Amino acid sequence: MKTRAAVAFGAGQPLEVVDVDLEGPRSGEVLVEMMATGICHTDAFTLSGDDPEGAFPTILGHEGAGIVREVGADVKSLRPGDHVIPLYTPECRECNFCLHPKTNLCQAIRETQGKGVMPDGSSRFSLDGKPLLHYMGCSTFANFSVLPEIALAKVREDAPFDKICYIGCGVTTGVGAVVYSAKVEPGSTVVVFGLGGIGLNVIQGARLVGASKIIGIDLNPKRESLGRKFGMTHFINPNEVSNVVEAVTDLTRGGADYSFECIGNVKVMRQALECCHKGWGECYIIGVAGAGQEISTRPFQLVTGRSWHGVAFGGARGRTDVPTIVDWYMDGKINIDDLVTHTMPLADINKGFDLMHAGESIRSVVIY
Amino acid sequence: MKTRAAVAFGAGQPLEVVDVDLEGPRSGEVLVEMMATGICHTDAFTLSGDDPEGAFPTILGHEGAGIVREVGADVKSLRPGDHVIPLYTPECRECNFCLHPKTNLCQAIRETQGKGVMPDGSSRFSLDGKPLLHYMGCSTFANFSVLPEIALAKVREDAPFDKICYIGCGVTTGVGAVVYSAKVEPGSTVVVFGLGGIGLNVIQGARLVGASKIIGIDLNPKRESLGRKFGMTHFINPNEVSNVVEAVTDLTRGGADYSFECIGNVKVMRQALECCHKGWGECYIIGVAGAGQEISTRPFQLVTGRSWHGVAFGGARGRTDVPTIVDWYMDGKINIDDLVTHTMPLADINKGFDLMHAGESIRSVVIY
Repeated sequence: MKTRAAVAFGAGQPLEVVDVDLEGPRSGEVLVEMMATGICHTDAFTLSGDDPEGAFPTILGHEGAGIVREVGADVKSLRPGDHVIPLYTPECRECNFCLHPKTNLCQAIRETQGKGVMPDGSSRFSLDGKPLLHYMGCSTFANFSVLPEIALAKVREDAPFDKICYIGCGVTTGVGAVVYSAKVEPGSTVVVFGLGGIGLNVIQGARLVGASKIIGIDLNPKRESLGRKFGMTHFINPNEVSNVVEAVTDLTRGGADYSFECIGNVKVMRQALECCHKGWGECYIIGVAGAGQEISTRPFQLVTGRSWHGVAFGGARGRTDVPTIVDWYMDGKINIDDLVTHTMPLADINKGFDLMHAGESIRSVVIY
Repeated sequence: MKTRAAVAFGAGQPLEVVDVDLEGPRSGEVLVEMMATGICHTDAFTLSGDDPEGAFPTILGHEGAGIVREVGADVKSLRPGDHVIPLYTPECRECNFCLHPKTNLCQAIRETQGKGVMPDGSSRFSLDGKPLLHYMGCSTFANFSVLPEIALAKVREDAPFDKICYIGCGVTTGVGAVVYSAKVEPGSTVVVFGLGGIGLNVIQGARLVGASKIIGIDLNPKRESLGRKFGMTHFINPNEVSNVVEAVTDLTRGGADYSFECIGNVKVMRQALECCHKGWGECYIIGVAGAGQEISTRPFQLVTGRSWHGVAFGGARGRTDVPTIVDWYMDGKINIDDLVTHTMPLADINKGFDLMHAGESIRSVVIY
């Protein structure tokens, strides 16, 4: 079949919206009609050419929502008409990672996914007879895409695609880091470095679980009112204090119970650790640092009881936890509407990247 | 009263065994007759002058066992005749650290203890009318010492002092790191960097909880047979492999569930983190690094599921957990006898330091 798609032909070039060829689903695969897709920093990172694993030509996009249109042989958990959210972190429920209680990093299809192909080693997308690569196992910048069954979370049918697509990455990454990775307890103090799409979701995750103090930190003073809307109780602008770590320590009477780095800046990652409370403070790194960059600290910080962690996809097991997060949205427990600041048709997708780079959007969503 | 003590008059000088004056216990304090004391690397570190918090003249020693001889006013949990182990990490059961479920770092008397004085700000030791400092709140290199009630664990009376004194630091630090801090599960794979007194205790802690693979790493080939005696199942000499991290990864099919750094070398601390299994491996730093030294790694190590922790006093709450560890020794669950390689009278205490520096002893114990 043919499908419209925004193709990334090379690093640093704008996407081109063209009709491409899409093969139907093979065994264990599912054809999904995308109804909406968010535009995430990770797409921009790969498109820029800075992603050492990036390869072209490819169809980017990993934050979608859509409807199953066809299932291949041996697909048991999904059927046509099901509403689904693609999962760049799949959940096979069989590998030693899925069966381990402490991780969500299913490895079942990691190698082929990293190479931009389906688990059998081939691509379903092509143009003029030449294969186009898949991206993060999702390629949600195509109106139709083929995904492995284990990379699709089945969700309720009354949830709006143009909002829940954001659960495919940003919402789950932020809310999940609080709920699934850190397991923040009610009454805790939480510090969030960077109030972009991820940081705001960490904030509302902290509110969801009943944190007592939620401190947001950002250089952009405009983010203060937005942060407060999502549950932030205190705001620190690093430009307005002499020392961020001391400012947090003062506000929390000795340090935060939990801190989250949502920027990808290795210096901030150190601050995030060191502003944690002696004895029990836990720092979670969510942001992705530039290639080759390193974090450092004195080991004394750890020996006196702080610990340093990282999170991918919010510690969520996609097929299990994403439907729950959709419920939280539908029940009004989390706010997505105010995070989707811009929508556009696929034809204008490059505008979404421009808005992101200009810092004008929290999230742009393409509606098919 | 008078008591014999090994006094450290200055950095880098041998200890001098002299009679010093000791005031009786004030309110909340207890007079203890030391029956035995271990000689620990931490004593040597302070004596060397490298410890930025070290101060002189002082009476070192923090790994003792003895008998209560007199209690001051308001002491409720101890009486003369009780057998006790001094605690450099006390347990007041009232401060916000003691009441927090995630830490053992009681802060009740931290400031005065760090200054070498009792909680009321004064010293009980003096010589020729001039005060001598206490050390780590213990000063077990004196035949009699005065300690706060909250810094004494009451233990069973049938346990031999010359063995259980080692529970006052080394045994608890190593065994506790496994049991109380990391909470290693049966069947886990465990890697231990450095097979000195602490590392060997980590090994037997891992055996105690039923770890399946216990890999010891040391440059000294003589430590292999000793390690195996304590439960080590595999030995790696870094001089005999091209890459320690790869060697561990091979032996554990992808990385260790838990690793412990028992040296104090920041480069090894990095290896200890990076040899952990993706998704769930946890690294615990026990060794104390030199002043100002830093650890570093790529944040990717954390984002892919490894975590970096530290341990002090094995995560043990002294008054609560130390008596349990004494039971484990008396029940034959842990082996201390083979770790106490040398004993000597107080008069020969400097010989104990010489044996340590020469790498000939695991633990030297002074018997009063």
